[in-house]
Amino acid sequence: MTDFPQDYETFDLGDFRLQHGATLRGAQLAYKTFGELNAEKSNVIVCPTWYSGRHWDNEWMIGAGMALDPTKYFIVIPNMLGNGVSSSPSNTAPPYDRAQFPNVTLYDQVEAQHALLTQRYGIERIALVTGWSMGAAQTYQWAVSHPDMVERAAPFCGSSKTSIHNFVFLEGVKAALTADAAFQGGWYHEQPEKGIRAAARVYAGWGFSQAFYWDEIYRDVWDSLRLRTKLTFSSLEDFLVTYWEGHFLGGGPIFHERDANDLLAMLWTWQYGNVGATPGFDGDHVKALRSIKARLIAMPAERDMYFPPEDEDYASQFIEKGEVRRIPGVWGHFAGIGDNPVDSSFIDDVLKELLKGKGGLV
Amino acid sequence: MTDFPQDYETFDLGDFRLQHGATLRGAQLAYKTFGELNAEKSNVIVCPTWYSGRHWDNEWMIGAGMALDPTKYFIVIPNMLGNGVSSSPSNTAPPYDRAQFPNVTLYDQVEAQHALLTQRYGIERIALVTGWSMGAAQTYQWAVSHPDMVERAAPFCGSSKTSIHNFVFLEGVKAALTADAAFQGGWYHEQPEKGIRAAARVYAGWGFSQAFYWDEIYRDVWDSLRLRTKLTFSSLEDFLVTYWEGHFLGGGPIFHERDANDLLAMLWTWQYGNVGATPGFDGDHVKALRSIKARLIAMPAERDMYFPPEDEDYASQFIEKGEVRRIPGVWGHFAGIGDNPVDSSFIDDVLKELLKGKGGLV
Repeated sequence: MTDFPQDYETFDLGDFRLQHGATLRGAQLAYKTFGELNAEKSNVIVCPTWYSGRHWDNEWMIGAGMALDPTKYFIVIPNMLGNGVSSSPSNTAPPYDRAQFPNVTLYDQVEAQHALLTQRYGIERIALVTGWSMGAAQTYQWAVSHPDMVERAAPFCGSSKTSIHNFVFLEGVKAALTADAAFQGGWYHEQPEKGIRAAARVYAGWGFSQAFYWDEIYRDVWDSLRLRTKLTFSSLEDFLVTYWEGHFLGGGPIFHERDANDLLAMLWTWQYGNVGATPGFDGDHVKALRSIKARLIAMPAERDMYFPPEDEDYASQFIEKGEVRRIPGVWGHFAGIGDNPVDSSFIDDVLKELLKGKGGLV
Repeated sequence: MTDFPQDYETFDLGDFRLQHGATLRGAQLAYKTFGELNAEKSNVIVCPTWYSGRHWDNEWMIGAGMALDPTKYFIVIPNMLGNGVSSSPSNTAPPYDRAQFPNVTLYDQVEAQHALLTQRYGIERIALVTGWSMGAAQTYQWAVSHPDMVERAAPFCGSSKTSIHNFVFLEGVKAALTADAAFQGGWYHEQPEKGIRAAARVYAGWGFSQAFYWDEIYRDVWDSLRLRTKLTFSSLEDFLVTYWEGHFLGGGPIFHERDANDLLAMLWTWQYGNVGATPGFDGDHVKALRSIKARLIAMPAERDMYFPPEDEDYASQFIEKGEVRRIPGVWGHFAGIGDNPVDSSFIDDVLKELLKGKGGLV
């Protein structure tokens, strides 16, 4: 795991106590910032990473003239614990290494990020938290864990509580990965490639909608903001190997290596996502949503197969200043990854609108 | 594989030549019949099996007072080649055994069934072909392969051409199953249980809709016509193990053993399903649909995740006497398996209506 961009900073979380009891000693939160923190410390945007994503995967959202404009805002991308850049199974020293890496909740993720913002930067208010997929889950968690700190929230293609169906989808991904004997219960010395490739193939059916495949959109040229390149695939199999297996396995021209235990650590965090599990809410998801003070615009994708927009309609009714804007089109969940300019623009426009509202800088 | 009900007959297909070139010597078609063939041989209904299904899995559709009434009709349930009862990887002698079992197309499946009907029974007309899922694919294939023989067709939760997304979903199932080293490229002596269980978990996210899980319908009591028992599950995990792993692995209280190579043989048949691949159509799916003479009612399920109803709307426009009736509700693909009385009644009602039309017996 040495092929990563080294363009990030780290924050020492010290002896980081996790919600489920373990202490991750010397835990490191890796992050990258863009722009300058202003004197009032009022221009902060937090943009957490997604499942298997690293900070550079969120950079497509940032640019002069975009909502996340580094000439106006101080933008922080914290790497989720477990993602291979922050403390993770793949980079933690024994005894909490590899298969023994402890369960990390979304509450824990946000507490780590909160420590960074408050202790290193003295930040007390966040203008916006926004993120895709598990980044959306962290966005919701921020709004619940720190309701007086978060002014605006824009979770896209994600949820405040992982649905049962979503949990089942992830069971399939996990089962495929761990079916490979080379996984060795997590104590491998070489990545279980066959299992990782299998997990990627399972994921391929879920990431995009049925209509995306029907329309053979993988044959089109994609001007990917995220990967800063044009993508095109010569066949379905080329798409499955290059985009999907490449995404999970890394080593291809456009992706970086991922570790099996890291993938499983993040998967656990995702499966047990629930803002109701925040201390003080006793598991009550609705009560947790009712506590949100931020203006919150959820952006589910119209044809997302595992975060269907109906789920966000349901959640939104409990959020006082909550609303839902559906991302139209056929990209499904991957509408939010930054590979499709049309969907990326939709998201950016909503973020701009949200930031222009009361309390915004513009 | 000795725990099967032995309540079926076999038809010797002889040296059965397959569309892709192989000859399956001494191929056996296992089937079961219900009711009596009338003197005019005008009361024939064919009901092909689904992916991993065996003849007894279709028997829920048959009963006095139901559309498939054995007091009126001569009903034939042919076991699909590859399903473990008819010739399959698991029961074929070398050299075409196990991983070397040849690719069988839907065209081949129907030719085998055609040989049975014509050679053993002298049947020239079929009042109705109907089936679920891959049974629906065989139904379409019947209507294309033998347009002058099939009077009515009622494919439910299936398609005339496997969509690209559906193909990708199956890639995930296949990858999970074959990720298990115990699979040994198909040359195992013991079933690759871990891989089969993984495939089952992958399937679990697809078989039912998101809303099915959201509503926790697995907790309800199911009065399963198919399994002739009431089913209820104590938790999500119980449902995943008992229903899903039990379904794929067999050996549980309600299911029979399945073989990994058999599952993969049927999967290939499914992935390459396309009525356009019928000789004479040169791959032209639309041309093949236009050749159908049967009155055809397709019944996609409203929330089917891999046979979405839009696909059937598309196909139906090319079928002269074609129409579409959507099965409402949240069961998704499994609306058609016979475990949900409401959906089973919907299907039965449409079949009754179809049989009452011109040329019907009632």
